[in-house]
Amino acid sequence: MATNRQWIYARKPNGQIGAGNFDLREAPMPQAGPGEVVVRSTMLQFDAASRAWMQGQTYRSQLNPGDVMAGRGLGEVVESRAEGIAPGDVVMGDIGWQTYAALPARQVQKLDKSIAPELHLSVYGITGLTAYFGLLDVGRPRPGETVLVSAAAGAVGVLVGQIAKIMGCTTVGTTSGKAKCDWLTKEVGYDAAVDYRQGNIAGNIKAVAPQGIDVYFDNTGGDVLGAALARMNMWGRVACCGAVANYDTATPSPGPAGVPGFLVTKRIRMEGFVVMDFFNRRREAETQLHRWVQSGQLRPVVDIVDGFEKMPETLVGMFAGRNRGKLLVRI
Amino acid sequence: MATNRQWIYARKPNGQIGAGNFDLREAPMPQAGPGEVVVRSTMLQFDAASRAWMQGQTYRSQLNPGDVMAGRGLGEVVESRAEGIAPGDVVMGDIGWQTYAALPARQVQKLDKSIAPELHLSVYGITGLTAYFGLLDVGRPRPGETVLVSAAAGAVGVLVGQIAKIMGCTTVGTTSGKAKCDWLTKEVGYDAAVDYRQGNIAGNIKAVAPQGIDVYFDNTGGDVLGAALARMNMWGRVACCGAVANYDTATPSPGPAGVPGFLVTKRIRMEGFVVMDFFNRRREAETQLHRWVQSGQLRPVVDIVDGFEKMPETLVGMFAGRNRGKLLVRI
Repeated sequence: MATNRQWIYARKPNGQIGAGNFDLREAPMPQAGPGEVVVRSTMLQFDAASRAWMQGQTYRSQLNPGDVMAGRGLGEVVESRAEGIAPGDVVMGDIGWQTYAALPARQVQKLDKSIAPELHLSVYGITGLTAYFGLLDVGRPRPGETVLVSAAAGAVGVLVGQIAKIMGCTTVGTTSGKAKCDWLTKEVGYDAAVDYRQGNIAGNIKAVAPQGIDVYFDNTGGDVLGAALARMNMWGRVACCGAVANYDTATPSPGPAGVPGFLVTKRIRMEGFVVMDFFNRRREAETQLHRWVQSGQLRPVVDIVDGFEKMPETLVGMFAGRNRGKLLVRI
Repeated sequence: MATNRQWIYARKPNGQIGAGNFDLREAPMPQAGPGEVVVRSTMLQFDAASRAWMQGQTYRSQLNPGDVMAGRGLGEVVESRAEGIAPGDVVMGDIGWQTYAALPARQVQKLDKSIAPELHLSVYGITGLTAYFGLLDVGRPRPGETVLVSAAAGAVGVLVGQIAKIMGCTTVGTTSGKAKCDWLTKEVGYDAAVDYRQGNIAGNIKAVAPQGIDVYFDNTGGDVLGAALARMNMWGRVACCGAVANYDTATPSPGPAGVPGFLVTKRIRMEGFVVMDFFNRRREAETQLHRWVQSGQLRPVVDIVDGFEKMPETLVGMFAGRNRGKLLVRI
């Protein structure tokens, strides 16, 4: 019988997350209960929110030490006790950091095998839906406007920048380091990039976007949010997608001083969203994203690491800003 | 010839505002140029934003030391060189802190003399429009929801609380001191009041509103905003009307730590507004406010001080939280 390898969330991070927060364990192969399937993991993804799950309750219940680390992924069905799903099917679901998982069949989604697995986990998955609905429904950019995106080299950011260009906007991305700035403008298609680690973020945004910012897609909070508010135009919109700047820490920093002052004087709308709330409209987004990918207007950007044993260090690397696009581990 | 008495904004405040920032001066009577009227001031109002005008550019240009202190008010026309306005008419406009002003006729508004002057400057003026549009258009409360209002004993706050009750909401107001808390619940009609100076604001809001807050009408920013975000329900809305907590200081405090974290997890919409943007719809608001006042559902709350010489100390008193309702000086 095969063995199930699992990464256990073993110890609560005290400050920044490290590989030492996880233990590798071997467990017996799971078996399918009634209505369940057993899935062999083939590709697992990482989310910026992973760190928040360990810290407290978010949009999902808190993770506790001893639990298998949570995460979505994709796998092949090896056993099924559910109607309509058979061994050999490819499914997506909350597999967690393990090589096998037993899951209720109605909590997994059967996938089109003709599409590359990394696309299911990036542009056609939660990441793509987040970029699509967050930018278009919450940010509501109009042609000719300027869109700023933080964590622009991240999974969501690389898509937001491209969708904003498709909408006829000028795009500015923030990231860390000159190499990633160059990559954003040369490879991803951003009009300009700002290295937030250089400081004077508001001044550097102004230098590349003297016309001001109309829509800010905020993946980070923190200093970039503060700078963005200072540079926003009248009637600007801030789509709050996440707060990476505060995820990997035990002591969240204070909010931007521009709240609520700039919101009033510049009539700014700032709105948080969680992609699940848009799931009833996911077909619309998937259809549009597929069309853009097929036409070559939207290029999926994925960063694939090989080896289940590399899960913890890969997550740590994501918080250190090492990935470019959606970070995935192939198993 | 009569003399024009003027309060000059003489010295920039260094920290909190004081009566010493103003000088009383006598100036020659103004004369009407072509298209202008000369107005004898009869009642002047105070705005929380006055302090911000001295600090920097807001929705109006910055005030500079040496300028007549700015402020709206109401007066009687004593000279007219404009069509359609005659001596004896009562008008409202940006008179400033002076006993006479020459103003372009198209920048003043002719008023219905049958309505008490204090109502023109409160419920039927900018204050009433601010409460009406800010609560209804930005906050969008639904019957049965809970509405929190900061600076609830202030000019706008006393109206927002009453309009929210008319809309079928439960209301909670924050203010300073037990006396004003009692006044809010016994006289103004708030369901509950919280004294923010007692500390533990979030806990005290929870004690009186365990069901959570759906709409927060923010007049203050600062600690009350932070506490409100912690107590907001999912899909909560924050109407940002002003930031009194940061007006009377040279060093604005950092923003609330819940931004953007709470905005994301609770899908909160936070939106700033300036009442001028709704002026094209002012008839709608005036009609509705008039109907509510006539029916006794909405009670104007004004705090009238007598004497032009008391202008500076009255403004200082407003920032110290001494007024109850719209603060006016009768001249």
